[in-house]
Amino acid sequence: QWTLLDWKPRRDDMLVDPFGLGRIVQEGLVFRQNFPIRSYEIGADRSASIETMMNHLQESALNHVKCAGLLGDGFGSTPEMSRRSLIWVVAKMQILVDRYPTWGDIVQVDTWVTGSGKNGMRRDWLVRDGNTGETLTRASSVWVMMNRKTRRLSKMPDEVKGEIEPYFLDSPPIVDEDNRKLPKLDDSTAEYVRGGLTPRWNDLDVNQHVNNVKYIGWILESAPHSILENHELSGITLEYRKECGRDSKLQSLTAVCGDIANASLGVEGVECEHLLRLESGPDIVRGRSKWRPKKINNIGPEGLIPAGSL
Amino acid sequence: QWTLLDWKPRRDDMLVDPFGLGRIVQEGLVFRQNFPIRSYEIGADRSASIETMMNHLQESALNHVKCAGLLGDGFGSTPEMSRRSLIWVVAKMQILVDRYPTWGDIVQVDTWVTGSGKNGMRRDWLVRDGNTGETLTRASSVWVMMNRKTRRLSKMPDEVKGEIEPYFLDSPPIVDEDNRKLPKLDDSTAEYVRGGLTPRWNDLDVNQHVNNVKYIGWILESAPHSILENHELSGITLEYRKECGRDSKLQSLTAVCGDIANASLGVEGVECEHLLRLESGPDIVRGRSKWRPKKINNIGPEGLIPAGSL
Repeated sequence: QWTLLDWKPRRDDMLVDPFGLGRIVQEGLVFRQNFPIRSYEIGADRSASIETMMNHLQESALNHVKCAGLLGDGFGSTPEMSRRSLIWVVAKMQILVDRYPTWGDIVQVDTWVTGSGKNGMRRDWLVRDGNTGETLTRASSVWVMMNRKTRRLSKMPDEVKGEIEPYFLDSPPIVDEDNRKLPKLDDSTAEYVRGGLTPRWNDLDVNQHVNNVKYIGWILESAPHSILENHELSGITLEYRKECGRDSKLQSLTAVCGDIANASLGVEGVECEHLLRLESGPDIVRGRSKWRPKKINNIGPEGLIPAGSL
Repeated sequence: QWTLLDWKPRRDDMLVDPFGLGRIVQEGLVFRQNFPIRSYEIGADRSASIETMMNHLQESALNHVKCAGLLGDGFGSTPEMSRRSLIWVVAKMQILVDRYPTWGDIVQVDTWVTGSGKNGMRRDWLVRDGNTGETLTRASSVWVMMNRKTRRLSKMPDEVKGEIEPYFLDSPPIVDEDNRKLPKLDDSTAEYVRGGLTPRWNDLDVNQHVNNVKYIGWILESAPHSILENHELSGITLEYRKECGRDSKLQSLTAVCGDIANASLGVEGVECEHLLRLESGPDIVRGRSKWRPKKINNIGPEGLIPAGSL
């Protein structure tokens, strides 16, 4: 279904959205927003980080809700949700990255929603190179409702269903669902454990809670450097199990599946399993990541960023 | 001088820069770029963070150099600099924030350069609300040259001067220079010390060094929570003294000047002094920050961001 989405060259597209705030396309069911990649959104290897990609997913989703006129008094809650103190929380996120953009590239993010079971909503994204139309990233997520006061999950009230169903696009998930169970790692099954992780002041969002995008940084903290250096993340599945606040202390655990020795040489892909847990016990996020060998970096020492060096 | 800069309403301005990549204005000497504020660029109090503001300064500076056709093979180095393995490093940065923008606002950043002594360059920025023209932020910085291989500071070669001087805008600093000496704090003079700070993988830039914007997060790590909660940063001066790499372990020290008890109540402004140092001894950054009481937050609990909560 998504391959049918009409791709337009970027110049036209930017001219009808000069403020870069996005707009509705595809008979009202797809939201499209362009993002220029900034110098501060790229990492040590000059390509945009996975956090950057996830930030663009979040921003386009919120602007979709805003643009559809469904923004209640929260960020992403509809008026009927706000009335009931309900908020959206992400339960699962699956991201496949074919290629990471670099500084100055413009990426075009399409996003749409559909139902997921009786009480959930699925949101998908297709991210393309704004210049060539090449697919860069596909992502699929499942959202459920939580009562803001009791912090318990909630059924989806009919009134809310009535608000959002007209926006559902009938399409299969853009990413084949990874249904393999995510294991609960522990100190005996994880080879890499990094403790003492705490939120920085600016990791907190308006809710005084850690934003879901920030977790990815902690997850990668326990991935071995040999993998981070020689590979790039090609896909990640995250299951969000519990929220995490300002004074939380976390541990990040990683197990490498397959041959780490070969993987360290960067000659083949590798898969990892992850767990982010509170030091006091409960799981925060379980995850699985896939990595492919990094293309040889032939930028050389001439291509360094000086501005940040001192 | 800067008040003479011609301010134009945002719609025209965005239409001539539909890609949001900026353009040269003011007879070729000022570079102007618009940034929509994203949901992931705001913090717990709904306003853009100081890091966000600094990111926009960095991005507009790099695009200025690129747009002027002066980008060598590095980020910000001119061709004559690249030929000599010279890179720009920031020696001093002073930022005054009148008001922080929020999600959906568009800020307009003007930036220009001029000489600073015999071997330095000053870069100034004026950040305005793209809708109203209201001044949001003013910043001034001093840059010097470093040899990328020897890591020693360098004189500015005449050939480099020849490249950049045509772009100098003759104007006084947009921020009155804070010439008060920045003290070297130590464990006896700093009331707040936070140790064990290490770069996360994504704090590193292409140089495998920590980007200068990241330091601010560490500096604020040692500021007392009562100040972070009840105040907003109105100004900061940073002196960069040494670079910091991947395996660095840092300590952040803060001394509060004046009456912390009153400051904690949020009834008056407060000034802090900061030091970021390697645990092995050398100073990385010295700083001074000014804080003003935060306006009363009357958004209430309805206005929370849910998307990131779980």
